[in-house]
Amino acid sequence: MPGYAGDVVESALAQRRQRVAHAARQSGIDVVLVTPGPDLRYLCGYDATPLERLTCLVLPVRGEPRLVVPQLERPAAQTSPAAELRIVDWSETEDPVAVCVQLAGAGVRTVAVDDRMWAEKVLAFRDAMPGTRQVAAGDVLSAQRMRKDTAEIASLAEAAAAIDAVHARMGEWLRPGRTEREVAFAVARGIHEAGHERVDFVIVASGPNGASPHHAPSTRIVAPGDTVVVDIGGTMPSGYCSDSTRTYAIGQPSRDAREEHAVLQRAQQAAVEAVRPGVSAQSVDAAARSVITDAGLGALFVHRTGHGIGVETHERPYIVAGNHELLEPGMAFSIEPGIYQPGRHGARIEDIVVVTEAGCRRLNQRPRELVVL
Amino acid sequence: MPGYAGDVVESALAQRRQRVAHAARQSGIDVVLVTPGPDLRYLCGYDATPLERLTCLVLPVRGEPRLVVPQLERPAAQTSPAAELRIVDWSETEDPVAVCVQLAGAGVRTVAVDDRMWAEKVLAFRDAMPGTRQVAAGDVLSAQRMRKDTAEIASLAEAAAAIDAVHARMGEWLRPGRTEREVAFAVARGIHEAGHERVDFVIVASGPNGASPHHAPSTRIVAPGDTVVVDIGGTMPSGYCSDSTRTYAIGQPSRDAREEHAVLQRAQQAAVEAVRPGVSAQSVDAAARSVITDAGLGALFVHRTGHGIGVETHERPYIVAGNHELLEPGMAFSIEPGIYQPGRHGARIEDIVVVTEAGCRRLNQRPRELVVL
Repeated sequence: MPGYAGDVVESALAQRRQRVAHAARQSGIDVVLVTPGPDLRYLCGYDATPLERLTCLVLPVRGEPRLVVPQLERPAAQTSPAAELRIVDWSETEDPVAVCVQLAGAGVRTVAVDDRMWAEKVLAFRDAMPGTRQVAAGDVLSAQRMRKDTAEIASLAEAAAAIDAVHARMGEWLRPGRTEREVAFAVARGIHEAGHERVDFVIVASGPNGASPHHAPSTRIVAPGDTVVVDIGGTMPSGYCSDSTRTYAIGQPSRDAREEHAVLQRAQQAAVEAVRPGVSAQSVDAAARSVITDAGLGALFVHRTGHGIGVETHERPYIVAGNHELLEPGMAFSIEPGIYQPGRHGARIEDIVVVTEAGCRRLNQRPRELVVL
Repeated sequence: MPGYAGDVVESALAQRRQRVAHAARQSGIDVVLVTPGPDLRYLCGYDATPLERLTCLVLPVRGEPRLVVPQLERPAAQTSPAAELRIVDWSETEDPVAVCVQLAGAGVRTVAVDDRMWAEKVLAFRDAMPGTRQVAAGDVLSAQRMRKDTAEIASLAEAAAAIDAVHARMGEWLRPGRTEREVAFAVARGIHEAGHERVDFVIVASGPNGASPHHAPSTRIVAPGDTVVVDIGGTMPSGYCSDSTRTYAIGQPSRDAREEHAVLQRAQQAAVEAVRPGVSAQSVDAAARSVITDAGLGALFVHRTGHGIGVETHERPYIVAGNHELLEPGMAFSIEPGIYQPGRHGARIEDIVVVTEAGCRRLNQRPRELVVL
C-alpha cells in the first residue's frame, strides 16, 4: 500500500488519532467509534469494505485505541497499516457490539459515531449503551481532514495528474457511433491504467443527457454535433481521490453550446480567482454564479460550485451559498460550475484547487475550452 | 433498465411499497425513511448513489409515499422506475431533512430508518423529530426481501449463469507469472462482458493469501503449485447479484491441498443436501461444519456457511450458528464453506441455492472439484 509503508507514516497515523482524540475531548466526547469508510482509512490506513459484520475503531479520548474486526478479516487488517494498533477479533457467534462497548470503558456519556456508519450499527450501539448520547463525529473529524498537510497535497496533486492523463486520452474513446456505456467502460479502464486503485465514478452525458448533472451512462449513441460532459474520478493507492470534468464537442458544436461554454469558462475562472485564505466558501460560489447570472443563465446552474476532496470525493468544505466557513491554506476542493439546458445539452468544467497563502493552486491542468474531438 | 420497464413491473414496485407499509404498520411504525442503497432499489427501482446530499423515500404507513431528491438529481430519478412516485426536489440551499419531516406528516411517534442509512442522516432525523423513536427498518424490509418471488428467482438464476460464464473462462486469465491484481482486472472485465452492470468484488487469493478469506488482490505473482481462491460477484441490470467461489490449482497441487479440498467438497454437498423448508438456518451451517470438524479441520473453517442474496450480496438469512430462522421456499443464499491454513493456502467452494418445496435448487453449476489450470 504505497504511501503508508514504513514507521514514519505509521506514526503519522497515530498522530492523526491523537489529534482527533484531543479534539473530541474538547467537544465533550468520551469515545469515537469509526466503521469502514474514509474516516477509518484516514485514521488507520485500513481500506476495509463496509459489511454487515462489524469492523470498528474504538478510540477513547483517554486511553488506547483498539480495532475490532471479524475473525476472518484479521489477516487483512494485520497486513494493513492498522497492524500498529491492538486488534481485537470476534468470532461468528460473538456479539461485536458488546466487545466494542467493553473496550469503550466505563463512565461513557457521549459517543461520537462516524458520519457514514450504517443505521443498523448506530442503533445497535444506542441500544447497547443506554444513558449515553450519540453525536456525529463529522465535526471533529472533518475539521482535521479538511486541512491537508504537505504530504496530502502531494497525494492530491498525484491524483489530479492521473485523472488529467485520462482526459488527455479522451479522443481514443469518445467517438460518434459508440454508446455512452461503451465509452464509459473504456474510460474506466483508462482510469485504472493511469494508476488509480479504484474507479469511483464515470459520467459520460451526451447531447440532452448532459443536462442531468449526475447522469448514469446509458445506451444512447454519441452523435456528431453532441456536446458531452465527462466527469470522472478514482482513488489512488495513497487513498486520495481525483475528480475532474471537461466538456467535449463531437464535431462542430451549436452556437448556443459554444456561447454557453464561454460563459461557463469565465465563471470557473472567476471562482478560482476568488479563492484565498480568509474568504468564505460561499463567496467562491457567488463568484462563479454571478458571471452565469449576469449572462442571463443563472437558473440553469442548479448545483453548488464545489466540494472538498481528500480521502473521500465529497467532503468539507462545501462551496455553496450559506456556507460561511472561512478558507484556510491547505483546504482542497473542486470548482465546477455547470450550465444545463433541459432537453438540449449541458456543460461543466471542474478543477481541484488547494488554498495557498496567496490564493490557490490548480491541480488539474487540461485545457478548459470546449474541446472538439 | 431492463427488468423494470413497463407498467406491470412499476405496479409490482408499488405492491412492494404497500406490503412494506402494511408490515411496518403491524410493527407499530408510523413512517419508513429509505435512503440510497439496496432497500431503495428494491422499493423504487432507483439505483441512486449514496451521497451527502439527501435522497430519501418517505413512506408513511398510511398515505402516499414521496421521493425526496436533490434538484440536480431529479432528471436521474425521473428516468428511473421511481418516476411513478411523486417526486419532491430540494435546492442546494434548502434543508432536505425538514422537507422529509413535513412529508412524514403529523403524529409520528415511531420512525423506521433503512439499515444502511448514514449516521449523519440518522442523527439529523433524530434531532429534527424530537419525541419520536427511531428503529431499524431491517426487520420489516428484510422479512419481505428474503422471500423471493418467481421473477426474482429468475433474475438470480440469470445472475448465477453470468458468473458461471466468468468462472468458465478462468483459464484465460489465471496463469503463473501474473500478479493477483492483473488477474483481478482481467476477471473484472470478464464480469462486465458476461452482462453484469457493476463489478461488486473480485477476490483472487493465491498461495498463502488464500488463507485470508477476504484477501484484497495484491502484487503477489501467481506461481506453479499454488492453489488460488477466486470469489467473484457483480450486479446485473435487473438489480440482482451474483456470487460464486471456486478454488483453482496452478499445475499439480500439494497432497494436503487436494485432501482438504475433497473434505470441503463433501462439506459443501452436505450443506446443500440439508436445505429444505422448515429446517433452521443454523442446521445448514452445522451440516457443513460437522464434515470439516470430523476431518479434524474444524478450527480452520473460521466463517459462517453462507448469506442471503438478492438486490444485495449479503442479506438475510445468514447461515450461521445461532440463527434459528426457519427456511422457506423462495429464500436464496450462498453455501460456501472454506478451509484456511494460515501461512500456507486456503480453499472455498460457493454456490447460490434457492429453497424449493422439496429441497433446494443450485443456481451455480460449475464443477466443484479443485480445477487444475
